[in-house]
Amino acid sequence: MEMRKINILRNYQLFPAGSVLIEMGNTKVICSATVQEGTPPFLKNVEQGWLTAEYGMLPSAPNSRFRREASSGKISGRTAEIQRLIGRSLRTILDLSKIPGYTILIDCDVIQADGGTRTASITGACVALHDAIQMMLAQNMISENPMKELVAAISVGIVDGEVKLDLNYQEDSQAETDMNVVMTESGKFVEIQGTAETNPFDSAQLTEMLEAAKFGIDALLKAQQRVIQKK
Amino acid sequence: MEMRKINILRNYQLFPAGSVLIEMGNTKVICSATVQEGTPPFLKNVEQGWLTAEYGMLPSAPNSRFRREASSGKISGRTAEIQRLIGRSLRTILDLSKIPGYTILIDCDVIQADGGTRTASITGACVALHDAIQMMLAQNMISENPMKELVAAISVGIVDGEVKLDLNYQEDSQAETDMNVVMTESGKFVEIQGTAETNPFDSAQLTEMLEAAKFGIDALLKAQQRVIQKK
Amino acid sequence: MEMRKINILRNYQLFPAGSVLIEMGNTKVICSATVQEGTPPFLKNVEQGWLTAEYGMLPSAPNSRFRREASSGKISGRTAEIQRLIGRSLRTILDLSKIPGYTILIDCDVIQADGGTRTASITGACVALHDAIQMMLAQNMISENPMKELVAAISVGIVDGEVKLDLNYQEDSQAETDMNVVMTESGKFVEIQGTAETNPFDSAQLTEMLEAAKFGIDALLKAQQRVIQKK
Amino acid sequence: MEMRKINILRNYQLFPAGSVLIEMGNTKVICSATVQEGTPPFLKNVEQGWLTAEYGMLPSAPNSRFRREASSGKISGRTAEIQRLIGRSLRTILDLSKIPGYTILIDCDVIQADGGTRTASITGACVALHDAIQMMLAQNMISENPMKELVAAISVGIVDGEVKLDLNYQEDSQAETDMNVVMTESGKFVEIQGTAETNPFDSAQLTEMLEAAKFGIDALLKAQQRVIQKK
Amino acid sequence: MEMRKINILRNYQLFPAGSVLIEMGNTKVICSATVQEGTPPFLKNVEQGWLTAEYGMLPSAPNSRFRREASSGKISGRTAEIQRLIGRSLRTILDLSKIPGYTILIDCDVIQADGGTRTASITGACVALHDAIQMMLAQNMISENPMKELVAAISVGIVDGEVKLDLNYQEDSQAETDMNVVMTESGKFVEIQGTAETNPFDSAQLTEMLEAAKFGIDALLKAQQRVIQKK
Amino acid sequence: MEMRKINILRNYQLFPAGSVLIEMGNTKVICSATVQEGTPPFLKNVEQGWLTAEYGMLPSAPNSRFRREASSGKISGRTAEIQRLIGRSLRTILDLSKIPGYTILIDCDVIQADGGTRTASITGACVALHDAIQMMLAQNMISENPMKELVAAISVGIVDGEVKLDLNYQEDSQAETDMNVVMTESGKFVEIQGTAETNPFDSAQLTEMLEAAKFGIDALLKAQQRVIQKK
Repeated sequence: MEMRKINILRNYQLFPAGSVLIEMGNTKVICSATVQEGTPPFLKNVEQGWLTAEYGMLPSAPNSRFRREASSGKISGRTAEIQRLIGRSLRTILDLSKIPGYTILIDCDVIQADGGTRTASITGACVALHDAIQMMLAQNMISENPMKELVAAISVGIVDGEVKLDLNYQEDSQAETDMNVVMTESGKFVEIQGTAETNPFDSAQLTEMLEAAKFGIDALLKAQQRVIQKK
Repeated sequence: MEMRKINILRNYQLFPAGSVLIEMGNTKVICSATVQEGTPPFLKNVEQGWLTAEYGMLPSAPNSRFRREASSGKISGRTAEIQRLIGRSLRTILDLSKIPGYTILIDCDVIQADGGTRTASITGACVALHDAIQMMLAQNMISENPMKELVAAISVGIVDGEVKLDLNYQEDSQAETDMNVVMTESGKFVEIQGTAETNPFDSAQLTEMLEAAKFGIDALLKAQQRVIQKK
Repeated sequence: MEMRKINILRNYQLFPAGSVLIEMGNTKVICSATVQEGTPPFLKNVEQGWLTAEYGMLPSAPNSRFRREASSGKISGRTAEIQRLIGRSLRTILDLSKIPGYTILIDCDVIQADGGTRTASITGACVALHDAIQMMLAQNMISENPMKELVAAISVGIVDGEVKLDLNYQEDSQAETDMNVVMTESGKFVEIQGTAETNPFDSAQLTEMLEAAKFGIDALLKAQQRVIQKK
Repeated sequence: MEMRKINILRNYQLFPAGSVLIEMGNTKVICSATVQEGTPPFLKNVEQGWLTAEYGMLPSAPNSRFRREASSGKISGRTAEIQRLIGRSLRTILDLSKIPGYTILIDCDVIQADGGTRTASITGACVALHDAIQMMLAQNMISENPMKELVAAISVGIVDGEVKLDLNYQEDSQAETDMNVVMTESGKFVEIQGTAETNPFDSAQLTEMLEAAKFGIDALLKAQQRVIQKK
Repeated sequence: MEMRKINILRNYQLFPAGSVLIEMGNTKVICSATVQEGTPPFLKNVEQGWLTAEYGMLPSAPNSRFRREASSGKISGRTAEIQRLIGRSLRTILDLSKIPGYTILIDCDVIQADGGTRTASITGACVALHDAIQMMLAQNMISENPMKELVAAISVGIVDGEVKLDLNYQEDSQAETDMNVVMTESGKFVEIQGTAETNPFDSAQLTEMLEAAKFGIDALLKAQQRVIQKK
Repeated sequence: MEMRKINILRNYQLFPAGSVLIEMGNTKVICSATVQEGTPPFLKNVEQGWLTAEYGMLPSAPNSRFRREASSGKISGRTAEIQRLIGRSLRTILDLSKIPGYTILIDCDVIQADGGTRTASITGACVALHDAIQMMLAQNMISENPMKELVAAISVGIVDGEVKLDLNYQEDSQAETDMNVVMTESGKFVEIQGTAETNPFDSAQLTEMLEAAKFGIDALLKAQQRVIQKK
């Protein structure tokens, strides 16, 4: 099982509480975490905080120019799906009752797109979230660490009948099946999204894909742990 | 393993080529299939047809009134996600090269919502699609049947630590994990979307959920086959 | 004077306070009434309630597929006009000072369209409104019945020089003049909207159309009274 | 029967083919007619022209500032209704088969609003349309006059139980019933829109309102004829 | 240096606090000032008022019909730019701390467009603002005059290598460089916006354009002073 | 006269024809140039190409999070203004008749914002444009170099009565006057946009600001020339 070179750079931007540049091969995403006071209306009268995520792509990021969503006046279904996935994945590892009154905004902006931008976003955003939480603890905004464990994500697929890990754009566009897996340090699943693009897949293939994903997630979690330990 | 009462009513509406009312317990969805000439711009110069799906919910359908999306001026992320899922699932069982020059539009409109509306939509739409295809064959619009096999979908989840099949709204809102599974008559997976809402799930739970889903899908496929055989 | 078969089915949906399926021949509309706390901003400091209506059409309802308004991102002029007409017609028979602090939302969703959808909406919604009011009285949300009388609506037109009642889609598209009439149990006019599509009409034709409308409204009021008396 | 002072000023703007300032008391509307080549998509393969109308109001026109519709990003239901009414009324007096290949755009922009802006728009736009037609004939764009006769519009209502003609803003906001009537030179109805705002009206009141409207329309048609005869 | 005929008509509309029709040759703009209670959210906790401006153009105003921005559902970049310029220019001459709790809305609506509509808007709006301020003082809404001095604006450009003042539409569309200058009574610059459309300009040309602008501004300030002195 | 450290990094992204990261102190902008076949509708029948620019800012770029424009569903007036400025500035140095049939899209995306983002965008985009042109020449898409000379931009302002070059965010927010100047290698002005935020400025101050701008532009042009000469 091979995967692309992982690179995680902390403190990438000056202003956000947490800011990370993550590279998975040629895919590059800036992930930031901003802390705001207040929570959304649906949490009125509930003693907890919230985390929400937004995802964007520079028009110049992919190999053929991407129409700017601000110009088209609406977010595509694909963008909406990815934003919801990132938000859900990070909320699962966060004890929201420990950040009462705060909303953490995650921004994932792809500056170069070569496959796997949504999974890179989750992996990178987890580190940015960690740094924002550390800032909140340091400034006594919260008293306990709400982060239960790390989370990372990887794509896996079936290309020409073979299971393949961490697909780049070209592999992804040829894949018969495409699966995104989000897992925690404790080895549990947060999200499995498997889609047969052309041919349905059977149980044996499912098992093989999940094993490959586990292998990739382990490597990503190690990379996260490494950069987090550095001060 | 228990699931709710399934009811599939064909020829529900007068005008569309295929029209089905599907009921899964209290959940009721009108699924229709309309055939149009022409294909989307991205298929220019490609000798194949297309299938696309739209999903809506009457404001009066759920247990607390749903804000009409036409009024808010945009489709929510949830609606976009569901539309894409329905379209992908049905395209997988269709040989698009056998409907060249045509687009089949699937409309799934929920008139009563009690959990599992997206999976009921796929199961019902599959029958509406079948009927539209029969019309196309009868009118010599196409010469070969493009439908490779039937497809059906079911939700499964973990509620209070127990695997539960075909969740209603109340169960769904308490579920720790929620999974939608789309499978074909040949027993293969078209789509697996498993999401840990609060607690991540482990491999054993994943296996148990997939088995429950298989059981439910079999019942749905039988119900589809039964109504299709009636003339 | 002939009109199409009228069918009014109460308690059609599970969740709204009032829910009716009305059929006028092949035209079928789901009408519901939902009660919400609060009133619109323009009633701040006024001791009264409000009623507002929304109208929609399933894409699969008419004989050629209707573009979903949620997708186009805006409500058409036609929809806006119909929504305003339904709301005005029902407000006229309601003493809004007797529902202070509440807004009643009427949803009329056409599931099959064969002419006369806006008038069927008013006639059906009147029954759904009645049921919602009964619920409000039963739950002591209000102390007096705010409904002054019933209201019903019918279309009438001139087709090939002849006055015709309750036009179906084909008649409507050939009509030289098209008129919608909304009347109360007490035999008064709430709304008259007469439009010459191709040829202007004279006073004699106007008189004849109003008489036909009166005949149709009487039949509709009887149908409403019949279903309301059933428990 | 009294009505407000009518003033119709032709050639008000420099650029449009027809341009009129119409004043009904304090209500002032600029009505213009622009001729464009081409017809809307739904007339493809039909040998006729088209006429469409747009209506706007300067934010500074009414007695309390009107939110600019360009800023709110959509046209209100009221504006949509008025635009459709103006367009329908003018199309009724036009033989569209005599302007094949052309679309006439009517713009009615209210610069001062004191009641009756939609009826003033129709009356003024009819003169602007006449002038645009004359230009088309003069430039040999068309060979026959497509205008069958003039059309004018007036509002009438019931205020304090009395029928009142040509209501200003204050009267209109107190009216129990409000009716807009559009009639042709030949004394026929093009449109009747009567709305009970608070109390339904009976047949006798309807008759009285229609008589008052006839009186007002006659005065407006004379004013139109007078200015048109001037070169 | 020649410029077009200036005409400023006060009290043009009935309802706004200040209302002016300004004509610069064939260019005609209605400028109004409306006073509203309240200030925008970003001034919460700041003891001052605000002034904001909106700009619009009747579709019938320019020599080829302008697409109505309310119909297109958004304001163009050009409109946004002009609105911001008008607002900034007028705020510069206003001591906002002297109108605490109030927002003045400026509406500039072009009813005939022949070049220089944005500069005519500023010059006309300054007089409308003056009249609104006088009303505020007369009604004791404010105690001190917040208007520090008058402001006026003119366009200047280079056409065929020659500096030209107050360009009409045809000159403007041929100009190599186009500059809008906003100046105060005290002879200072509020805004300089010089744009090379085709050929960059040098320092000598810049100096010459600024001198021409100064000449034009002086004439405009005199016209403003003249109409303001009339009661 | 001091200005911030300039850094221009070519070939920053993998996919666009030209891609530059420009840093002015803490301000960082990714500027890319993409070449597309086809020209906008208004150039139909004109034998020339086109260049257009878009500008965006990552939500995480400024010192307080910026609301994502794709989410708000529209581009702000500020963004529209900047996009138009970048496009105009680059078109001035380009002979559009030498790129017939092509459109060059410039994307300027701010990844860190500390003042002067629009001027940094122009300066960086000029280098990205240069690289895209070189690619077009190398691939024989065009036969002659359409770039007449380089262009660069800088901000200058008056802070506490003193002329200041290349303002950072804090200086910019305190500035009494803010001016953006765009100049060519040949020392001519492409654009001057001077705005008095609080106090109008006089001729002497204008002269001093233009001199400072000239000094800054010279430094920027040298930096551009330096990176361009490297292969």
